Amino acid sequence: MADRFECLVCGPVASRDPYPPFCPGCAEPLFLVPAAPRSGRKTIHEDRPLALERFADFLPLDGIDSGLSLGEGTTPLVRLEHAGAALGLSAVYAKNEAQNPTGSFKDRGTAVAVQKAVSLGFKRIGTVSTGNMAASTAAYGARAGLETFVLLKEGTAVASLKAAGIHGPRIIAVEGDYGSLFRASLDVGRRLGISFMNSIDPYRMEGYKLTAFEIYLQMGRRSPRFLFVPLSSGGHLLGLMRAFDDLEREKLIETYPTFVGVQAQGCAPLAAAFGAGLDKYERSPEVRTIAQAISNPTPPAGNAVLRMIRERRGTLLAVTDEEMLEAQRALAADEGLFCQPESATTLAALKKLVAAGRIDEKSGDAVLLLTGSGLKTLHLLESVPVEVHRIPLSGLESCLSRLS
Amino acid sequence: MADRFECLVCGPVASRDPYPPFCPGCAEPLFLVPAAPRSGRKTIHEDRPLALERFADFLPLDGIDSGLSLGEGTTPLVRLEHAGAALGLSAVYAKNEAQNPTGSFKDRGTAVAVQKAVSLGFKRIGTVSTGNMAASTAAYGARAGLETFVLLKEGTAVASLKAAGIHGPRIIAVEGDYGSLFRASLDVGRRLGISFMNSIDPYRMEGYKLTAFEIYLQMGRRSPRFLFVPLSSGGHLLGLMRAFDDLEREKLIETYPTFVGVQAQGCAPLAAAFGAGLDKYERSPEVRTIAQAISNPTPPAGNAVLRMIRERRGTLLAVTDEEMLEAQRALAADEGLFCQPESATTLAALKKLVAAGRIDEKSGDAVLLLTGSGLKTLHLLESVPVEVHRIPLSGLESCLSRLS
Repeated sequence: MADRFECLVCGPVASRDPYPPFCPGCAEPLFLVPAAPRSGRKTIHEDRPLALERFADFLPLDGIDSGLSLGEGTTPLVRLEHAGAALGLSAVYAKNEAQNPTGSFKDRGTAVAVQKAVSLGFKRIGTVSTGNMAASTAAYGARAGLETFVLLKEGTAVASLKAAGIHGPRIIAVEGDYGSLFRASLDVGRRLGISFMNSIDPYRMEGYKLTAFEIYLQMGRRSPRFLFVPLSSGGHLLGLMRAFDDLEREKLIETYPTFVGVQAQGCAPLAAAFGAGLDKYERSPEVRTIAQAISNPTPPAGNAVLRMIRERRGTLLAVTDEEMLEAQRALAADEGLFCQPESATTLAALKKLVAAGRIDEKSGDAVLLLTGSGLKTLHLLESVPVEVHRIPLSGLESCLSRLS
Repeated sequence: MADRFECLVCGPVASRDPYPPFCPGCAEPLFLVPAAPRSGRKTIHEDRPLALERFADFLPLDGIDSGLSLGEGTTPLVRLEHAGAALGLSAVYAKNEAQNPTGSFKDRGTAVAVQKAVSLGFKRIGTVSTGNMAASTAAYGARAGLETFVLLKEGTAVASLKAAGIHGPRIIAVEGDYGSLFRASLDVGRRLGISFMNSIDPYRMEGYKLTAFEIYLQMGRRSPRFLFVPLSSGGHLLGLMRAFDDLEREKLIETYPTFVGVQAQGCAPLAAAFGAGLDKYERSPEVRTIAQAISNPTPPAGNAVLRMIRERRGTLLAVTDEEMLEAQRALAADEGLFCQPESATTLAALKKLVAAGRIDEKSGDAVLLLTGSGLKTLHLLESVPVEVHRIPLSGLESCLSRLS
């Protein structure tokens, strides 16, 4: 049976296209309509080895080809003892998506989008990205034996492409507006038979649902009170929210979490629109942040995010580069978790909401989505001094005594 | 009950020391004597969340404090379709230890050593390392709220310390011989109450057993025919071998795998000694390899490796930097796995043994231990050209058509 799509504004979409990129009515992003369970109710199969197989009842895939998987998912939920105590909260957890095959949450979405692309007969895939999504798509493309195209904006530092480049994709730097490139890739891809799985690809967003399902299981089959998510295109946040919609529809949860989407102050079109009470965001005039992975001035699912966050009584806010770098150091030094600065925006935002009195010890627990590994942005640490004590071997004991 | 230790040469060690570093008789490394099961036989508890908890019956710990864990282990076993077909083997798998919290297998050992250190009342831990083990020990030390000391050889590039440094350890560069530093750290640590968990720490080696137990489960409760492991100090290889000893003792496996330890040609004291039929290795006169993580000229468990590999009819060999870099690219471009060059020595070695006719399609399956993430050694890719096509947006379709 063909998959069905819906738009958050216009409702179900009548399309004979197996893979429509945007709503033909209002040009908003599309989502999969959750399919009815094949028999009885949807079940989580906890004994299956792959995350894709465990949550197969919730995915728009007729089958799972384990040969296309790199073992994504099944990431730990780590209790942050120090942060919880310091902020006076009952419990704070980190869902560590850095432990995915290419070191970021993108693998969740790429895994599902590649399953679908192969089942639809595509021999070529692509993405528009310079960072985590490029590496992830190139890795899964290599795994599946597909020709892979990575499109990026002219002017991107080639250094950031090393992790994608080793998987052997075709890399194309395109001069012009990034938002236009995003849409052009989908149009051209359709004509040439290249499945472009960009940030808000509907199947990619389905993949992000699995993170939410795992959190639900790891919390003891319930929702956390708060869920903090770094926010850029909107695809990750919306995938997670749609997953809790699914759990609610299946009557598996009693409460819906409060979602907090976090942007970088230097490029925060959605936090700004939310703060101003607007339905539609305005293009960010400039990008001034180190947080490249979440600095999209024209997030393609931005208005959908504003709508869903309002409906579900969530909130959006922005943090500064200094705040996220401080949070990155705190996560590493106090909790043992080394994540990208973009991921640390979540802890910075939690601190801000506690400081503002909007979250306190009676509020309940919070989960922070750590989206990617700090190993991806080691160059950002170059300004952090590493103090090294230099001694001869004979001075070891006195040095250790003195420092202890 | 106090843990008991044994030496592979002298047998059980009578020691009132709760944590003896070397055999008092022959100065060889010590291993934990496997404890008898608390009740009935040892059981794998597959339903428990943490790897440490699942295999607790096999670990020398009285309890598991989940607050000290970062969610290490439970890494995927990925079938390498391309390598298997290209080499004409029935099946080749990669056990991807890069998906551990700090991106390497070291977390397995650190997790157990920190559990033991905390249970023994240590407030301070340390390690002698410049790379993966420094980052791992610093992360787990931060997690446990312990003061952590990282000792390294004077002259080490500070760049390689960034990933450890962010966790806030004390870093001390020591002038002098590395092997002497290794032993001095243990002596001084004992006097000052600092638990130095170096490469062949007996509890660290116990942690590596869990990788073997997971492989056993992932293979369908049996041994692979071959297990390829990068080889440096010997701690990792010996931990894995001791795990299959445990499985054999518990009558859980019918066959013992053939272990293949792989060194870098530019520093291969153990492969050289094995090839020459020697019982004891000679110090490697120089280190000429990019494979820093496996370039120990005086591996502290080297003679124990030679003994156990001979007893179990395994083999040791060396591969060149060119061979490991080619294998690294093949794993990334053909299988979607981006690992350190050190990890790729395993595929290079498998290719060599197939080319030499020592492994063929009738030999059975092989598992390659991928020990660490390629993100840790991105600088080694700087010589690999990344081809970037530069076009205007209007030229996208023709460019994609031409490249397809």
